[in-house]
Amino acid sequence: MTEQTPTDVHAAWLPAEAFRSLGSRRVLVHGAGPLVDTVYEEAARACAEHGGQVRRAPAQGHGPAATGEDADLVLALSSANSLGPAARSVLAGFRAAGGGTAAIGDEGYLLARRDGTTLVLADDPAGLLYGLFHVVRLGAAAFTGDRPAEHHRPAVRSRMLDHWDNVDVHPVMGQVERGYSGGSLFWHDGRARGDLTRVRAYARLLAACGINAVSVNNVNVHATEALLLTERLGDVAALADVFRPYGIRVHLSVSFAAPVVLGGLPTADPLDPDVRAWWAEATARVHQAVPDFGGYVVKADSEGQPGPFSYGRSHADGANLLARALAPFGGEVHWRAFVYDHRQDWRDRTTDRARAAFDHFAPLDGQFDDNVVLQVKHGPMDFQTREPVSPVIAAMPRTRLAVEFQVTQEYTGQQRHVCYLGPMWSGILGFGPWGPEGPTVASVAGGGTEPGTGRAAGGGIVAVSNAGDDRYWTGHPLAQANLYAFGRLAWAPGADPAALLDEWIDLTFVPVAAGDPAPLRHALHAMMAGSWRTYERYTAPLGVGFMVRPGDHYGPDVDGYEYTPWGTYHFADRDGVGVDRTRATGTGFTGQYPAPWSQVYESPGRCPDELLLFFHHVPYGHVLRSGSTVVQHIYDTHFDGAEEAAAMRRRWADPALTRLVDPALHARVGERLDEQVRCAEEWRDQVNAYFFRKSGVPDARGRRIP
Amino acid sequence: MTEQTPTDVHAAWLPAEAFRSLGSRRVLVHGAGPLVDTVYEEAARACAEHGGQVRRAPAQGHGPAATGEDADLVLALSSANSLGPAARSVLAGFRAAGGGTAAIGDEGYLLARRDGTTLVLADDPAGLLYGLFHVVRLGAAAFTGDRPAEHHRPAVRSRMLDHWDNVDVHPVMGQVERGYSGGSLFWHDGRARGDLTRVRAYARLLAACGINAVSVNNVNVHATEALLLTERLGDVAALADVFRPYGIRVHLSVSFAAPVVLGGLPTADPLDPDVRAWWAEATARVHQAVPDFGGYVVKADSEGQPGPFSYGRSHADGANLLARALAPFGGEVHWRAFVYDHRQDWRDRTTDRARAAFDHFAPLDGQFDDNVVLQVKHGPMDFQTREPVSPVIAAMPRTRLAVEFQVTQEYTGQQRHVCYLGPMWSGILGFGPWGPEGPTVASVAGGGTEPGTGRAAGGGIVAVSNAGDDRYWTGHPLAQANLYAFGRLAWAPGADPAALLDEWIDLTFVPVAAGDPAPLRHALHAMMAGSWRTYERYTAPLGVGFMVRPGDHYGPDVDGYEYTPWGTYHFADRDGVGVDRTRATGTGFTGQYPAPWSQVYESPGRCPDELLLFFHHVPYGHVLRSGSTVVQHIYDTHFDGAEEAAAMRRRWADPALTRLVDPALHARVGERLDEQVRCAEEWRDQVNAYFFRKSGVPDARGRRIP
Repeated sequence: MTEQTPTDVHAAWLPAEAFRSLGSRRVLVHGAGPLVDTVYEEAARACAEHGGQVRRAPAQGHGPAATGEDADLVLALSSANSLGPAARSVLAGFRAAGGGTAAIGDEGYLLARRDGTTLVLADDPAGLLYGLFHVVRLGAAAFTGDRPAEHHRPAVRSRMLDHWDNVDVHPVMGQVERGYSGGSLFWHDGRARGDLTRVRAYARLLAACGINAVSVNNVNVHATEALLLTERLGDVAALADVFRPYGIRVHLSVSFAAPVVLGGLPTADPLDPDVRAWWAEATARVHQAVPDFGGYVVKADSEGQPGPFSYGRSHADGANLLARALAPFGGEVHWRAFVYDHRQDWRDRTTDRARAAFDHFAPLDGQFDDNVVLQVKHGPMDFQTREPVSPVIAAMPRTRLAVEFQVTQEYTGQQRHVCYLGPMWSGILGFGPWGPEGPTVASVAGGGTEPGTGRAAGGGIVAVSNAGDDRYWTGHPLAQANLYAFGRLAWAPGADPAALLDEWIDLTFVPVAAGDPAPLRHALHAMMAGSWRTYERYTAPLGVGFMVRPGDHYGPDVDGYEYTPWGTYHFADRDGVGVDRTRATGTGFTGQYPAPWSQVYESPGRCPDELLLFFHHVPYGHVLRSGSTVVQHIYDTHFDGAEEAAAMRRRWADPALTRLVDPALHARVGERLDEQVRCAEEWRDQVNAYFFRKSGVPDARGRRIP
Repeated sequence: MTEQTPTDVHAAWLPAEAFRSLGSRRVLVHGAGPLVDTVYEEAARACAEHGGQVRRAPAQGHGPAATGEDADLVLALSSANSLGPAARSVLAGFRAAGGGTAAIGDEGYLLARRDGTTLVLADDPAGLLYGLFHVVRLGAAAFTGDRPAEHHRPAVRSRMLDHWDNVDVHPVMGQVERGYSGGSLFWHDGRARGDLTRVRAYARLLAACGINAVSVNNVNVHATEALLLTERLGDVAALADVFRPYGIRVHLSVSFAAPVVLGGLPTADPLDPDVRAWWAEATARVHQAVPDFGGYVVKADSEGQPGPFSYGRSHADGANLLARALAPFGGEVHWRAFVYDHRQDWRDRTTDRARAAFDHFAPLDGQFDDNVVLQVKHGPMDFQTREPVSPVIAAMPRTRLAVEFQVTQEYTGQQRHVCYLGPMWSGILGFGPWGPEGPTVASVAGGGTEPGTGRAAGGGIVAVSNAGDDRYWTGHPLAQANLYAFGRLAWAPGADPAALLDEWIDLTFVPVAAGDPAPLRHALHAMMAGSWRTYERYTAPLGVGFMVRPGDHYGPDVDGYEYTPWGTYHFADRDGVGVDRTRATGTGFTGQYPAPWSQVYESPGRCPDELLLFFHHVPYGHVLRSGSTVVQHIYDTHFDGAEEAAAMRRRWADPALTRLVDPALHARVGERLDEQVRCAEEWRDQVNAYFFRKSGVPDARGRRIP
């Protein structure tokens, strides 16, 4: 296998230098199958680069057993029949601890080191691959001292990236909807890219952070994209062939109207027998072309997309239609719960977009087939910088739920602003929908099937990708950290996001630093670790959300959505601001939560400050739990946030740091920091001026508000 | 000549039925030349349609003299040598009254009727053509009783329409920038239209209302459009050939950067000899292709267009460069005074976009060549529903000024709202920049050369066209009235706009009414005569302007431009609203006016209510000259305006009226009225809610504000 990353493309978290420790060792790969081939090729490439040696255990029954006694690193399937004593001993210990029957499990691995040999043992080849990348992350530490056996396995079976990539360039949304990283890796101007070199490099990056599923086209399925299901299926199969060696299954976004649009049927009614037959046949053809096809992603009855409502059917009817077509082949439907009225009358204060997903879907709990995954946005609105966790997550115990994040920074600076989202996702995954002591969001998304408990299996963790054909993959080079952290958190939701950030820095920057990397490591951590909170400070305050420019969603426009049909309001007047979503006097949204949150969010005194204006309309003088008034909090955070952005830029411009980084990358980050500082000041001044003009309350510290 | 208007296109104000009186008479056309041919063809067509007879006086010295004694209508050049006694007598009377030397003058005509013959006499063929259309307007009245000689001549030499048509479809602005009438009559998707039938029909309509100049491409000159000056010149010549028979000269918008972009020169510096030579040569080629070429239209150093500022030169340097290239051929430069900083910082309250044109151009008075026309928007901002008259008009006595209007309804409802602009334009043209007793705006635009007075000749009246390839020419069929009224007011600025509206109704609807036209005539007048004031009532209040959605400029967004670089603000806060443009405490813009306006506008007590917020920032409780407070005025006018729109729709839906109008046209107007009512209610509710939230003042009449 030749070099997979084109030379003018940034290596992201897999620079050749990151493989130095592994590649300078004697490596033995033990097992057979395509993914084991991938493991072998990775090791071989590293060894060719760094002077190590790689061997492959001969196929069963041929030649001398390769026991690994003379290897520094053994990567072996647990089922291999010629394991060396160290591997056998580790396995035996693991099994004994588990009562003799413990499995390493799908995609999992054991990592240990004894007697000078590092061992990676897995039940399946995917586990070996993930173990290999774990060794890469450890670097030199993987080959020092002894290491008791650690068992690693993903918390969540499905760790998925949705690409909002269009095949045709959409007249408004472009090649990639909400894409800030150049063009699409898959499609270009109406056609599939012929050269998939870049896709292969992408697959490798995704596997290295734990992603195992990719949906290859936008959930808004336009005319050309609909054809991927039928006459352009070959394009999908070609992508699947490239993703497969990295353990990644391909999914496809489809139009619910496909039987009409593509099949020429008079209806797409999910209860119509011809419609069922059409989907069954279409799906069989897909599985013929892509034997490990993951399934369909569907945005139905949402923002103009067709759906079962057109036929008076429920979303369960709609999802089950597709699920039954996929079931014979082991495929799944990812059915998005993002359904709301986007033609709302702003004059009607009783309608609340936040309620919509719960109102639509909670009553359907128990009606979805087992291979339907209901894909729920993490918050009730739309990927804002700060939202409460969606109440749907606690409301559907008999439905397989996936939690959806947005790695592409639609509302969080569009990859022009440094905004490391790991802490946000970590907080959501660790949140207890039934209270701090109960199960977490991550456990709902990932929990195994629990027969008898009535609780459904987990549906996984999904996110919208931020990658494109940009040289740095993500437009802003530092936005790579979000893609990396998403994958790692989907695998291990309990991981510390600050540690994941360091992990990413240590792979991406440290191995290629032109000198002592310590200052660079320190500076990047300092710039990025708190950058989500910084972004929050200078944008919409206290969880109220939006205040972005309509349409492109970049930059401030406090009233931009205030009088629109999109259902996204702040209701600021001369006396106060915020949305009353209480049961007592508001839209009743707080009642969608179970205790204790139904009580906590209902009370302005108990509601966390950062969500206050999401749940309550309060006077500007309302005193927060922090002790500040609402309006003074707005002023303070906006002055602070903009100053923090400026500090970030100063830090990056430090000459001691500049010389450690590739000049082109340094310049790219520098340009974006300039824009971030400019934009943060614009946010600061617009938000402060807006609330000063409305409230008439001067800044307690006398700073200039324009 | 065959029927010029395609049958599926609405005839506008020239339906065949409007020619009934003329076409059923005996007509004699007297004179030679292309425009006389047009007069003859118009008469011949009408007579063929309606049973009349048309003769042409034989060429001088051939055959018997055609004296007109046996004709009902004689259209004759004053220089013809075989005029009949009636014509000779009318001419003699006219000359005697003028001291023996009076000329009818360019484009003018005498209209008289005596002894059963209606006479149209003109010094030039264009006058005959305008006289012919006057006879059409008069209808039966042209042929009854006697009529003393009336002398008609245009108040303004240049009566021009600027088309903002792009050759290529612009990715944002489309085929026609700010066009609401379908595609372009001239261009389609990157090419000139091959079939110019529609252009010929357009030329005829324009001549019938008095237009004599057309600029055929957008003032924002993009790459393809720039080529019209050189390799695509043939397309311009083809248009000129179609306009010429109707007395209309063609102008071209050019890029100031043409020497660089097209000529490959290293600079477009107006003082560079190579640049001068390039323009001279390019212009000579234009005149070779279009012998009567009107000249160039230039938007320089404005909203991204290149200009002389790039080279440290003045706008006089820039305009004179082109003027000198055009001078040998009698062409003129229309140089737009629309120059301002569109990258203004909204935080800087000292910069005032309203000041920009005066600040840039007033110091240059006297520096422009005689064939430069400085084209000044009627107001200091940008074609808002209500603006004061631009102070530039009083500030440049030694410069030829043209006043620019916008017939296309960018800010006045985009041809979805009925908004008859005649009263606005009439008010501006009749305004006295030096006070009510002094010369008017029209006299500045139209005044003859006054050697010795130091006052320059007039530059004419210009407007942006609202016509496109729509079936009804203007999207909204009733928007035709704006195009018609603009032409008629450019010819006769003192005309009563309500009478011009009736004139348009009488030509367009009355002749083709399916029954007694009286109710239709009454209803249209009632709907349209006050429609500009209605539109003003439900949109931005008291002259403050904008409050439209950024980008498309349709519908309300009160804060849409409030924090932007465009320089268009209202500064509303919890206490008051408006822009302080006084000398005492504001931007000093009032000081750009001469007395008495410099005093009137400076004083909140003397400033006309309808301009109060343009000049002053006042508390919501400020009492207007009308007796109402500012905030109550806002509520009242917005409730009233929306109700007036609803009344308009009710009137149009009256079955007694419906049956008089072509069903397709009736439906088109009906649909647009539905949208107007919806949008007016949206304006009402957004503006009222905005000011209620800010001021906290309840409506004195207790109406619901959402």
